[in-house]
Amino acid sequence: MSDVIALAKNLINRQSVTPEDAGCQELIKEYLDAAGFNNETLMFEDTTNLWSRRGIDGPVFCFAGHTDVVPSGPEEAWQTPPFVATEKEGYLFGRGAADMKGSLAAMLIATRKFVNHHPDHRGSIAFLITSDEEGPFINGTTRVIDTLEARNEKITWCVVGEPSSTSRVGDIVKNGRRGSLTGDLVIKGVQGHVAYPHLAKNPIHDATPALAELANTHWDDGNSFFPPTSFQISNMHAGTGAGNVIPGECHVCFNFRFSTQVTDKELIKRVTTILDQHNLNYEIKWTFNGQPFLTDSGKLLEATQFAIADVTGVPTQLSTAGGTSDGRFIAPTGAEVIEIGPVNATIHKVDECVKMEDLNILSEIYYSMLVRLLA
Amino acid sequence: MSDVIALAKNLINRQSVTPEDAGCQELIKEYLDAAGFNNETLMFEDTTNLWSRRGIDGPVFCFAGHTDVVPSGPEEAWQTPPFVATEKEGYLFGRGAADMKGSLAAMLIATRKFVNHHPDHRGSIAFLITSDEEGPFINGTTRVIDTLEARNEKITWCVVGEPSSTSRVGDIVKNGRRGSLTGDLVIKGVQGHVAYPHLAKNPIHDATPALAELANTHWDDGNSFFPPTSFQISNMHAGTGAGNVIPGECHVCFNFRFSTQVTDKELIKRVTTILDQHNLNYEIKWTFNGQPFLTDSGKLLEATQFAIADVTGVPTQLSTAGGTSDGRFIAPTGAEVIEIGPVNATIHKVDECVKMEDLNILSEIYYSMLVRLLA
Ligand SMILES: [Zn+2]
Ligand SMILES: [Zn+2]
Repeated sequence: MSDVIALAKNLINRQSVTPEDAGCQELIKEYLDAAGFNNETLMFEDTTNLWSRRGIDGPVFCFAGHTDVVPSGPEEAWQTPPFVATEKEGYLFGRGAADMKGSLAAMLIATRKFVNHHPDHRGSIAFLITSDEEGPFINGTTRVIDTLEARNEKITWCVVGEPSSTSRVGDIVKNGRRGSLTGDLVIKGVQGHVAYPHLAKNPIHDATPALAELANTHWDDGNSFFPPTSFQISNMHAGTGAGNVIPGECHVCFNFRFSTQVTDKELIKRVTTILDQHNLNYEIKWTFNGQPFLTDSGKLLEATQFAIADVTGVPTQLSTAGGTSDGRFIAPTGAEVIEIGPVNATIHKVDECVKMEDLNILSEIYYSMLVRLLA
Repeated sequence: MSDVIALAKNLINRQSVTPEDAGCQELIKEYLDAAGFNNETLMFEDTTNLWSRRGIDGPVFCFAGHTDVVPSGPEEAWQTPPFVATEKEGYLFGRGAADMKGSLAAMLIATRKFVNHHPDHRGSIAFLITSDEEGPFINGTTRVIDTLEARNEKITWCVVGEPSSTSRVGDIVKNGRRGSLTGDLVIKGVQGHVAYPHLAKNPIHDATPALAELANTHWDDGNSFFPPTSFQISNMHAGTGAGNVIPGECHVCFNFRFSTQVTDKELIKRVTTILDQHNLNYEIKWTFNGQPFLTDSGKLLEATQFAIADVTGVPTQLSTAGGTSDGRFIAPTGAEVIEIGPVNATIHKVDECVKMEDLNILSEIYYSMLVRLLA
């Protein structure tokens, strides 16, 4: 059994459901300590974070990841116990195997090997690990970044270990993510009886033309890295259940996933313009979940593409699809950010697993990137 | 204290919340029995109904009404106990004072007086009383009418005691009511994650243009007796509460209040045409609550207008506004139907009350109608 698999199993066996770390970071610190890193544990509320660095100069190559996992759901639905790492037909099963304890193990073993071979590497190597990536992401990466920014400590290149691959490791890397903006809208009418509509003002009737226009609006064309910005209404609720009452309010929740062609401020302005044009009486609360980010070029992207071709022999494809990641908190500091990790087919599902050979390959890719950038 | 007020109090003091009759009809039967009526109690499930008739020939003049009342709500919100009839400054307070125990008292005292003065009146006088007008109206008037129809017993003229008046007794009578039709619509999409909208189909986005068109449709112009047909969405629900999930279904409930210019069948056809034009994948369940009815002329309307002018000295206005009434079950048999009762300002509210003088006037109006039609 490779060192990568042994360490991945040791991490999977710790039941670290968000925001629990369950000793994962203590284990990680042992490896980093032995490799000459300075470890700094940053507890924020219920969240355990680790900032670890080897070297004091730039450039700073940082591995970013999380020790927490999503809940397993009913254990009896799993073929193997979710918190007992189990090998089966070349795969390693267990919650977090793919998202992302396998990546953490691959990073650590790659780093140990690199430090052994290049003890006097240039720049610095760092780890930014949190136990709150799958949860509310309030006390995790974002607060570690705040701490680093406050002391002007910068990351040059950041490799996030999120499972980016779709059919074999390295086939896809994420060089950006869309932004996310949520609106909670209340359209106000006047409640009344359906038999006396002239005494009421139906907020559903008021809302539907405006919502139809929002749903039909072309927000941008995207660009070569991003698909067009997408608007989706996720919830709409009005009425008490009584069939003869015109409701007084209509509640609507919608979400934007937006490209780098627009900003959250532009979207907010365009939505409120449409709502105002429809003469709606409304209140709206905006929740901003992150700007889009993009690493469209640079040494990190180059090193990633080189390393994948070098190790796997096949070219990689760039993508910005999917949900948000902690990359959104790191990119705004000026860091180049790339996400590369194992195949994501089973993440957040029962029987989560990862091909063991893929973790070894992933560790080789990480090692090759370190060599290219810091050797 | 007049006999009308004494009887109204006696009825109000009985706590007959739907479907309870609480002895009201026993009291009514005593009066009718003494006036030479044949009483027939018709129990259907939890509902007490009375069909009472004096005479065997036509024409049949029928008083229709209900002994049940809506709940009082929190008693402490009332200035006087809701089920203790209380006189105050010329008004009689209590649940049912206006809707419609006051009317029942006025009918009974008018009938007793008429029978005393005209023991050999032509035709028949009848009472159709239920304890299920405010409730699901399944076991009340509609089943009594079914029973009468089955034995070919017909009502010629029906006076419903619903509180039709707005500022003084007799200022408005209802000579018809709109029809009511409810649709429960489910628009089907494909559930998914907001980050992958191309894998989902948002049923809210699909629904809004169709709903906007329905809400904006001009269904008819009404006519000289009916306002234009009204469409109102009463409920709309989609989404699980999660802000990042595109819902799989969107539930919409709407109601038509429609004039005699359209039929339920036409409305159903026009709605489904609009839904189909928008290429929606949907299921719909229709609930038909009653055809519109209209008494646009005839001896009963003439007698009503004459009696009001005769007793109050002021002309009356015809209206078909407001909710449904049990008149919808009686009119389809071919009967002329008119609703006339006290001022409806406080019905279904706390501190329900009726001006005591209005009940005496109402009884005079009923008496005058009996004289004009049967003397
Ligand atoms: Zn993850
Ligand atoms: Zn009533």
